[in-house]
Amino acid sequence: MPEGRHQRVHVVGSRSDIRVPFREIRLDDSPGGGANGPVRLYDTAGPGGDTAVGLPALREAWIAERGDTGQHSARQGSSRDDGRSAARDGRRHPAHPGESRAPRRALAGRAVTQLHYARGGVITPEMEFAALREGMDPETVRSEIAAGRAILPANVNHPESEPMLIGSRFAVKINANIGNSSVTSSVDEEVEKLRWATRWGADTVMDLSTGRDIHTTRGWILRNAPVPIGTVPVYQALEKVDGVAERLTWEVYRDTVVEQAEQGVDYMTVHAGVLLRYVPLTANRVTGIVSRGGSIMAAWCLAHHEENFLYTRFEELCEIFAAYDVAFSLGDGLRPGSVADATDEAQIAELRTLGELTEVAWEHDVQVMVEGPGHVPMHLIQENFRLQQELCHGAPFYTLGPLTTDVAPGYDHITSAIGAAMIGWAGTAMLCYVTPKEHLGLPDRQDVKAGVIAYRIAAHAADLAKGHPGARAWDDALSKARFEFRWEDQFELSLDPETARSYHDETLPATPAKTAHFCSMCGPKFCAMRISQDIRSAARNDRAETDGLDAGALELGLRQKAEEFRASGGEIYLPAG
Amino acid sequence: MPEGRHQRVHVVGSRSDIRVPFREIRLDDSPGGGANGPVRLYDTAGPGGDTAVGLPALREAWIAERGDTGQHSARQGSSRDDGRSAARDGRRHPAHPGESRAPRRALAGRAVTQLHYARGGVITPEMEFAALREGMDPETVRSEIAAGRAILPANVNHPESEPMLIGSRFAVKINANIGNSSVTSSVDEEVEKLRWATRWGADTVMDLSTGRDIHTTRGWILRNAPVPIGTVPVYQALEKVDGVAERLTWEVYRDTVVEQAEQGVDYMTVHAGVLLRYVPLTANRVTGIVSRGGSIMAAWCLAHHEENFLYTRFEELCEIFAAYDVAFSLGDGLRPGSVADATDEAQIAELRTLGELTEVAWEHDVQVMVEGPGHVPMHLIQENFRLQQELCHGAPFYTLGPLTTDVAPGYDHITSAIGAAMIGWAGTAMLCYVTPKEHLGLPDRQDVKAGVIAYRIAAHAADLAKGHPGARAWDDALSKARFEFRWEDQFELSLDPETARSYHDETLPATPAKTAHFCSMCGPKFCAMRISQDIRSAARNDRAETDGLDAGALELGLRQKAEEFRASGGEIYLPAG
Repeated sequence: MPEGRHQRVHVVGSRSDIRVPFREIRLDDSPGGGANGPVRLYDTAGPGGDTAVGLPALREAWIAERGDTGQHSARQGSSRDDGRSAARDGRRHPAHPGESRAPRRALAGRAVTQLHYARGGVITPEMEFAALREGMDPETVRSEIAAGRAILPANVNHPESEPMLIGSRFAVKINANIGNSSVTSSVDEEVEKLRWATRWGADTVMDLSTGRDIHTTRGWILRNAPVPIGTVPVYQALEKVDGVAERLTWEVYRDTVVEQAEQGVDYMTVHAGVLLRYVPLTANRVTGIVSRGGSIMAAWCLAHHEENFLYTRFEELCEIFAAYDVAFSLGDGLRPGSVADATDEAQIAELRTLGELTEVAWEHDVQVMVEGPGHVPMHLIQENFRLQQELCHGAPFYTLGPLTTDVAPGYDHITSAIGAAMIGWAGTAMLCYVTPKEHLGLPDRQDVKAGVIAYRIAAHAADLAKGHPGARAWDDALSKARFEFRWEDQFELSLDPETARSYHDETLPATPAKTAHFCSMCGPKFCAMRISQDIRSAARNDRAETDGLDAGALELGLRQKAEEFRASGGEIYLPAG
Repeated sequence: MPEGRHQRVHVVGSRSDIRVPFREIRLDDSPGGGANGPVRLYDTAGPGGDTAVGLPALREAWIAERGDTGQHSARQGSSRDDGRSAARDGRRHPAHPGESRAPRRALAGRAVTQLHYARGGVITPEMEFAALREGMDPETVRSEIAAGRAILPANVNHPESEPMLIGSRFAVKINANIGNSSVTSSVDEEVEKLRWATRWGADTVMDLSTGRDIHTTRGWILRNAPVPIGTVPVYQALEKVDGVAERLTWEVYRDTVVEQAEQGVDYMTVHAGVLLRYVPLTANRVTGIVSRGGSIMAAWCLAHHEENFLYTRFEELCEIFAAYDVAFSLGDGLRPGSVADATDEAQIAELRTLGELTEVAWEHDVQVMVEGPGHVPMHLIQENFRLQQELCHGAPFYTLGPLTTDVAPGYDHITSAIGAAMIGWAGTAMLCYVTPKEHLGLPDRQDVKAGVIAYRIAAHAADLAKGHPGARAWDDALSKARFEFRWEDQFELSLDPETARSYHDETLPATPAKTAHFCSMCGPKFCAMRISQDIRSAARNDRAETDGLDAGALELGLRQKAEEFRASGGEIYLPAG
């Protein structure tokens, strides 16, 4: 793509180290000569650079200045942290070689969460940064966080992350899942997927690795992540007990949470609402339990016939989360796996429990969002949002899709983008992407891109419908460029400039076509926008003359212009090719 | 794909020549041994066969029996009918070589439309056929057509078409646009695109050709079309006047309509609502007029400073349409081309006129649907449907998308599938597809497929949300197959079995994986559905014992089963790989 048409620029806040990134796109003048100001778009790509060095520790000073954390020696690790294969054969991928920092945690008895500060009336640099990013007032950001209606995931051990907000008052965010499995992918591939996902617009990334080098992969990801990173700790905990759910214990789980919190994980999915008594509610479902974490905890409950330890130990978990500012993503382990099971008793029972746990977390100053389905037909989408807001006291909703039909495996980025856009409009704060490989296989790089793009579309469509300030400026700039045949501007303003340009080139590859005053769909004779532009010139040539006249006078002026227009004969078309 | 898992079957109606096609998919038994009945899906693919022969004339006898049409010698054609190039160089593609039939039209003073029969209380074989296809009562079909709330496009000169319904009480339909342009495509390619589009589920196809062999291409398409064919006659009429809108006349247009009606075109887009006084309303738009037909008629109006002849001659047009049973698709020539222009004064002014013309058409017993936008942000979608229904007296709505954001050229099949699903749920009867090439270039075969699949998703999601009878059975059958790891059934039930199978094979290519009791995403240890199935077995082994017991007793039974479950140790996992 042509050099210099876009660049990463920074808006500086109240202190010089608050430098908020945007992608700025410079536009050509309109054909008539009018200037088109640059467009600034929200930018998740991060500063980039050498992955072995890692990103700059943007928030390090802000965290240290608060004086409420201390550095300590890291938890004692073992080869077990990298999974069973590493424990068996001793082969481990090298740890991230960047500057090593001793992990931070809160001084005894302190909560170091953004929720704690917000409740205390403090606007942190993180809040100001995020407010500038959203084009919102910092006090609004603070009050939304204080009320629990928004979270700002910001583990004190992930100073590389650029602060962002998840809450219904703000732009709808999207999450991309990455992670290896027992048979595929390497550390390098996962780091590359992270960079690829944020390049295309992922606001957060979840590392769902379950394969080799599980600890080490996470370390590389965190040191290179300009966005908050989420995990599901029970996946790693299960690895530590050889994959047998029954052998899971609170101690193994807690150890895993501390391990991940020290690395810098910003939010963790915790399936604490899968209660023993809810499991039978899934017995008559078409698709049972489809959440991995949910099924692991359900199996544990059944095997022990005890209550889920994530529920019984929830307050201890809160204390850990408060000490690192890890946010809860309360997992919906009983979410429906088909439209047949949508919004059933099991789902609602669990949601009610998640609402109870939301209040417990808030008592500990811990930030919370709540996960949601999954598979929901369109007519139940609004109701799902309403129920979550009511039962969970306004905590941000974070949904997986939802898919609006089950019949299109291979296209579930589309079946779910429909649901995601609608539930985003309703007020859902973050949308977890679904890739074309959902239900069929593991996403590769192209699938990650397809999922991110589909979800950027859903999120932006939701922002438009919500009337998020500034959302429409992007659409209007692109549409104006389209109408004025500024093709390069149209490409550059696209969500995916490369694809837009390549599709155009397939039909009209020659460079002059980029400035042609017609679209390649219709050809020069048939181009509606070309004809329409000529009509417009005829209708409001000397626009100033008609301003202020009434409609009758305007039509009279139009008549005169139309006669000129007619007299000029074939002028409304380019010479036929 | 494995032989014999699906086939085209026919349901026979009240007479032996009413044979309604379905795609029937045979399913494997459940792992426990329970049989799964075959699933029958709506089928648009047609009987296929040699394109040089054309399809059987399914409706020929029904049309002849009614005794209200006569055959006559066709209008005198000329090389001009095949466009300017043919007129210039004399080269024309051979006409379709199949059996030639003299064109039919109504006997003098008769209307031969399905609306006419429905109003007279007659259930035609076409109505019964379409009712069986929808799983609806034929009388409901008749009364919906009689009320103008549905149309059954069925030109007497297109006896090959399999009757179908466009109306909000019925399944949501989709249209695929094909057609050559001045620089691309041949007759064979367009016929192949037709077959390809209907194979993937297009309910109607519009031939928007503007290039060489425009008349001949249409003939080949009609003789091979098992679905209704729509056109925009002004495109061909403009060719006949060398592409100069100003030179268009009513006579040239009327001649083109008769030419196309004799060939068998089932519905025609007519931009009769682009009135001279509405053109200035587009002057301040971001994207002016984006409809080709709309911009042509606007240019004509301005050039002549006369009222649009499609409006002034509308009753004459109705008489022609009534004589062949051509349905109106009242074009929205002033539809918005960007979210900025959505639902503006120009759009609504035209819609009001289309409502007036709907009533005029109905006075002539002519079937009518009304076209709609285009570009509409989500929060205005419901309102667009409501306005159309109110202003157009309940006539079926036929929208292009709508796109819910302008920022994703290259992905407008997705930006618009979101809007299409929502407006379909609201009650829109047919959705015109948008391909990934929209705004950028001409769709090729893969783009046609991508557009059709995205719109089949949107239409089916809408049917689910509307509660269309039988819609959910498809989802449920696929979800049950998924939960039971009947992979071949899952593929075969997919909207696109080839893609689903190939994505699965990328991760787990070996044949045994097709019957593996785990998904390739999570691997054997982590598969939620595998664990969930084991939980279910534990929870309702000997299901009969617990049926009729209260919840407490069920839980007690569950406890016993859970202890068995625990005693069996690692059984919930397959042996680790």
